[in-house]
Amino acid sequence: MLHFENDYSQAAHPAVLDALNAIGTDSYPGYGSDAICDQAKAKIREACGKPDADVWFLVGGTQTNQVVIDAITPPYAGVVAVESGHPNVHEAGAIEYSGHKVLTIPHHNGLMDAKELDEFCATFYADGNYEHMVFPGCVYVSQSSEYGTVYSKERLQAIADVAHKYDMPLFVDGARLGYALTATGCDMTLQDLADIADVFYIGGTKVGAMFGEAVVFTKHNTPRHFLTLIKQHGALLAKGFLLGVQFDALFTDDLYFRIARNANECADRIRKALREKGYTLTFDAPTNQIFVTLDEPTRMRLEEHVLLGFTQKADDTHTVMRICTSWATTKEQTDQLIDLL
Amino acid sequence: MLHFENDYSQAAHPAVLDALNAIGTDSYPGYGSDAICDQAKAKIREACGKPDADVWFLVGGTQTNQVVIDAITPPYAGVVAVESGHPNVHEAGAIEYSGHKVLTIPHHNGLMDAKELDEFCATFYADGNYEHMVFPGCVYVSQSSEYGTVYSKERLQAIADVAHKYDMPLFVDGARLGYALTATGCDMTLQDLADIADVFYIGGTKVGAMFGEAVVFTKHNTPRHFLTLIKQHGALLAKGFLLGVQFDALFTDDLYFRIARNANECADRIRKALREKGYTLTFDAPTNQIFVTLDEPTRMRLEEHVLLGFTQKADDTHTVMRICTSWATTKEQTDQLIDLL
Amino acid sequence: MLHFENDYSQAAHPAVLDALNAIGTDSYPGYGSDAICDQAKAKIREACGKPDADVWFLVGGTQTNQVVIDAITPPYAGVVAVESGHPNVHEAGAIEYSGHKVLTIPHHNGLMDAKELDEFCATFYADGNYEHMVFPGCVYVSQSSEYGTVYSKERLQAIADVAHKYDMPLFVDGARLGYALTATGCDMTLQDLADIADVFYIGGTKVGAMFGEAVVFTKHNTPRHFLTLIKQHGALLAKGFLLGVQFDALFTDDLYFRIARNANECADRIRKALREKGYTLTFDAPTNQIFVTLDEPTRMRLEEHVLLGFTQKADDTHTVMRICTSWATTKEQTDQLIDLL
Amino acid sequence: MLHFENDYSQAAHPAVLDALNAIGTDSYPGYGSDAICDQAKAKIREACGKPDADVWFLVGGTQTNQVVIDAITPPYAGVVAVESGHPNVHEAGAIEYSGHKVLTIPHHNGLMDAKELDEFCATFYADGNYEHMVFPGCVYVSQSSEYGTVYSKERLQAIADVAHKYDMPLFVDGARLGYALTATGCDMTLQDLADIADVFYIGGTKVGAMFGEAVVFTKHNTPRHFLTLIKQHGALLAKGFLLGVQFDALFTDDLYFRIARNANECADRIRKALREKGYTLTFDAPTNQIFVTLDEPTRMRLEEHVLLGFTQKADDTHTVMRICTSWATTKEQTDQLIDLL
Repeated sequence: MLHFENDYSQAAHPAVLDALNAIGTDSYPGYGSDAICDQAKAKIREACGKPDADVWFLVGGTQTNQVVIDAITPPYAGVVAVESGHPNVHEAGAIEYSGHKVLTIPHHNGLMDAKELDEFCATFYADGNYEHMVFPGCVYVSQSSEYGTVYSKERLQAIADVAHKYDMPLFVDGARLGYALTATGCDMTLQDLADIADVFYIGGTKVGAMFGEAVVFTKHNTPRHFLTLIKQHGALLAKGFLLGVQFDALFTDDLYFRIARNANECADRIRKALREKGYTLTFDAPTNQIFVTLDEPTRMRLEEHVLLGFTQKADDTHTVMRICTSWATTKEQTDQLIDLL
Repeated sequence: MLHFENDYSQAAHPAVLDALNAIGTDSYPGYGSDAICDQAKAKIREACGKPDADVWFLVGGTQTNQVVIDAITPPYAGVVAVESGHPNVHEAGAIEYSGHKVLTIPHHNGLMDAKELDEFCATFYADGNYEHMVFPGCVYVSQSSEYGTVYSKERLQAIADVAHKYDMPLFVDGARLGYALTATGCDMTLQDLADIADVFYIGGTKVGAMFGEAVVFTKHNTPRHFLTLIKQHGALLAKGFLLGVQFDALFTDDLYFRIARNANECADRIRKALREKGYTLTFDAPTNQIFVTLDEPTRMRLEEHVLLGFTQKADDTHTVMRICTSWATTKEQTDQLIDLL
Repeated sequence: MLHFENDYSQAAHPAVLDALNAIGTDSYPGYGSDAICDQAKAKIREACGKPDADVWFLVGGTQTNQVVIDAITPPYAGVVAVESGHPNVHEAGAIEYSGHKVLTIPHHNGLMDAKELDEFCATFYADGNYEHMVFPGCVYVSQSSEYGTVYSKERLQAIADVAHKYDMPLFVDGARLGYALTATGCDMTLQDLADIADVFYIGGTKVGAMFGEAVVFTKHNTPRHFLTLIKQHGALLAKGFLLGVQFDALFTDDLYFRIARNANECADRIRKALREKGYTLTFDAPTNQIFVTLDEPTRMRLEEHVLLGFTQKADDTHTVMRICTSWATTKEQTDQLIDLL
Repeated sequence: MLHFENDYSQAAHPAVLDALNAIGTDSYPGYGSDAICDQAKAKIREACGKPDADVWFLVGGTQTNQVVIDAITPPYAGVVAVESGHPNVHEAGAIEYSGHKVLTIPHHNGLMDAKELDEFCATFYADGNYEHMVFPGCVYVSQSSEYGTVYSKERLQAIADVAHKYDMPLFVDGARLGYALTATGCDMTLQDLADIADVFYIGGTKVGAMFGEAVVFTKHNTPRHFLTLIKQHGALLAKGFLLGVQFDALFTDDLYFRIARNANECADRIRKALREKGYTLTFDAPTNQIFVTLDEPTRMRLEEHVLLGFTQKADDTHTVMRICTSWATTKEQTDQLIDLL
């Protein structure tokens, strides 16, 4: 069976595993207060071009979204996201559990539009009853998006500008940041992102790590006593050094971006084949997630040999399925999939 | 200045005030454990045709929505409401504050459609990832709705049937229940509502009381230790007897429905005049809330003499305004308003 | 039956009722945005000697404690209170419901000791693991306390000084503030309190109002968008003018303090009689709450004629009972009680 | 430097690391729905002697306490724990964040007393105002306790009996369960624990795993939609198979208990040496945590060569320090420490 069902089905990149194995019987202080974490954070700061950014390591994506959004959103406010945003649909209400509403605006192939964000906020403040409503308190976008699309520098900057106009921080979910920044046509670097976003995270779980997300506050804007807030959410890993070790490996010799690029190259080849063979790409997206609208016979035929990700029913006779490559996808697997198409 | 801006701008119906004054220097036990509360509850049970319904008194509408929804919705679930539902737009996130997401479906002049509710739930459970999403856990509708429209027996029963199909209680917000049940053409009685809904409330604040909402659990389904839950939400009135006194007065000699009918009769006359004079009624609704789409000159002219409720901008040159009658609206005020139109 | 069971068993002082009745058919804007509220707030500001204090009206005590403590306490922090503090024991977990821990220190006849508060905080910050613990984030005391005792100016100032030393606001629960400030021997005025506390409330429910608590922020320290926070907690009264009317009456001609003083005078007479007749006063307290430790025969004898408040079992043969006077207690009732002792 | 500061300073037992490495490039379904998790759960069920127990894997201890306590405690209730209980002191308010109060009773060298629990509950229900208070809703104990002590079968059964008498589930925090069950003199087996507790967890983080806690519901009492609740708390690991792999290794050939026993054997030797050399053991405890009360010169001398854990100041000239062995402690390290004493 070929595995293209998601990008978190394998343990970790060999270099990450090696780094974890290399710890051996060494002892480290707990909760991320160790030297490897410090070293990994320094490498991330350098990669971001932000010598005084503040870096924190968390375990998973939903957890990170919950902790960060709760920490940066005022108590009387919610987080603005597009309807397809992960916290709005696939986090089991983790944001609402923390007391905040997810305020939604339309998405465009998964992306937010700055103008629509502006209109949403303008309409809010123009409403005479706005004090009886949930204030827009921060802005959430994901890079790449839930549909594999990416923000250009200009598009994200425009969103940041609107966010700041209404006194909101911009939070960028980078669960698949590597795949976004190395996508064909993406004009954004990690430094650009660090310039634009107020806080973002570099996803490890889906890009080579066993687990782990590196949260970066770029503007001396870490919420007060953030470690305590992490702990309060049950999100503080006792052996924080495990996170440091992994990110240290990922940010050595550009590993994080090299392995992300591999996923995109495999995906580009698959996309090319899909187009040549007349498949319908549901979204025009350049990253490791390919959404195809399949008729039932094709879907059933493919699923005999390939694990795909169910996305949604398109109509009575078609289904949107996801083909997902990852840091671990090989040339051979890609060839085999293309042969099957 | 004529007052048609809302239905909670006056203190209370004279009979309610008289009842409050009649208490004099009598002493009552606290927290609703008094004989007047018992008597008022008995009258409500009788009016509902439910001898064993369980009745509770709370102070206000948002508070009641928060307490009831939080109490009847499982912790892994949200409340399904139409987009225009009060908890979704005008309660400052009180539901999310209690940890639950408001799951929205479209509204039709403020009303929910049973079929759309069914499709929403069917789609939810058909999604392979539904365990990662917020379960639909209860259904919220308001009778009358935020746009003044009312559910027919059939329409509400259909919603209840779908709700029960998916193991959800149906909660009916009756902040304006009196105005709904006495509206021209409404085929639902209080007994019907008590048959259909799992829990509902009889709004006092907007229908003759100083304040107060009577929550009715009709199916031996009161959440365990509900008094403690009310207190935990900061919603337990020390002098609960004040609520009992008011509802006792409102449910004596059918006062509640008599004064509600007055509001509808005034509104019917205003609606007739609006139609005759060529105004655009935004919604076709039979209760005390009349929404009209006004051009700017008309709006400005009217607002010199009448207090109206801003609802929303319709377009660059039109605004939706609300004309709201109440139990307190007089024939004279109605005549004066009609003359101004 | 004589009523000495609590201070919230009667509707309202006649002057408050008169003021409510005087509204008649007048219409007022909603949610406290009316002129009577403005007038009442102005009178309260004047009584506090704080021309720029910010005043808000809420409905009840537990509600006020929940809303204020949640609003002024950082998300990583709890509220420090004495073990006997109302939010710690008799609010059904309303503070924890809002996400904050109640951090307790011992009480001394219901009162907090500044030195113990200092030690508690010093110990907290001296603990190497304090980031894994709940920070002390604000200080709660009640004036008068749950045991009827009162803080002197010096004692409360010392607590404020410690609170500020550790960057915490001091919140004073004044559910029975009138009874505290008019107690024999109390050296604190309302102005003193306004100087010392960062936020406090003037309790109406137990001192002449039907319901209502007036929250006063004295140091330009109102939490941002406090109205929205109130609404989010389900605590915003639609007919806010009802609160304004009541406090306007209470702060006209010093009514609030005059009727509070009556309760203390009755209580002083009862205390004197108790002492003369050899009863055991459980606490040495000067306000309207008298705690007596009764043997069973005496308790049973008294309870045939007087409603008392159960407090706790003292031992197998004694019970602590509360005799509570109020603004409504008459000379006759006091005489009758004394005769029974 | 010798490491005796805690039991979570090393990555993982070699057999666990081997198992993680052995995954290689295999792909697994997400969120714990894989075959290795199934296999690990089967082994745990067998070790518990409970063929139909329900097993779940979480990442860390505070997280597990928060998720489980929130899931099993009714909304109107709190969790009863001893004052020294981890959720009460060292979890940054994670329980209160989830809306529940921690109700405390005294500890006896870290242990709960069944009789005191009974008295606490009896007093609660005897209080006429109990509906205004936080109900005792579940019972939390830790085996071994925060002070290294262990519950005997009889003591824990007595607590369970009281818990059940008041309709509360008993939850046993087993972050250090291995060290408890293999301690000299402990008469409890895993099967015993599974018989007595309603839900407990087998701690991996501190006993050989990189991370991970295995929650066991023994009585068909898993909260409804527990997976969704886990996700809602941000606690669902994407690569759940990593947890399965680790627990599969730990429950192969009794590894979990073998390595736990090693820690206790080292600790027993250290305890013996401490006693022989006249040190003051703060608590009489048989597990891997040794608390000693040191005078300052001794503490300073030892800390030149050994990392110890600060616990608390005993008095002006003495400090309680923790010597903590673990699955990884070697005979050599133990010898070296003993030589230093």
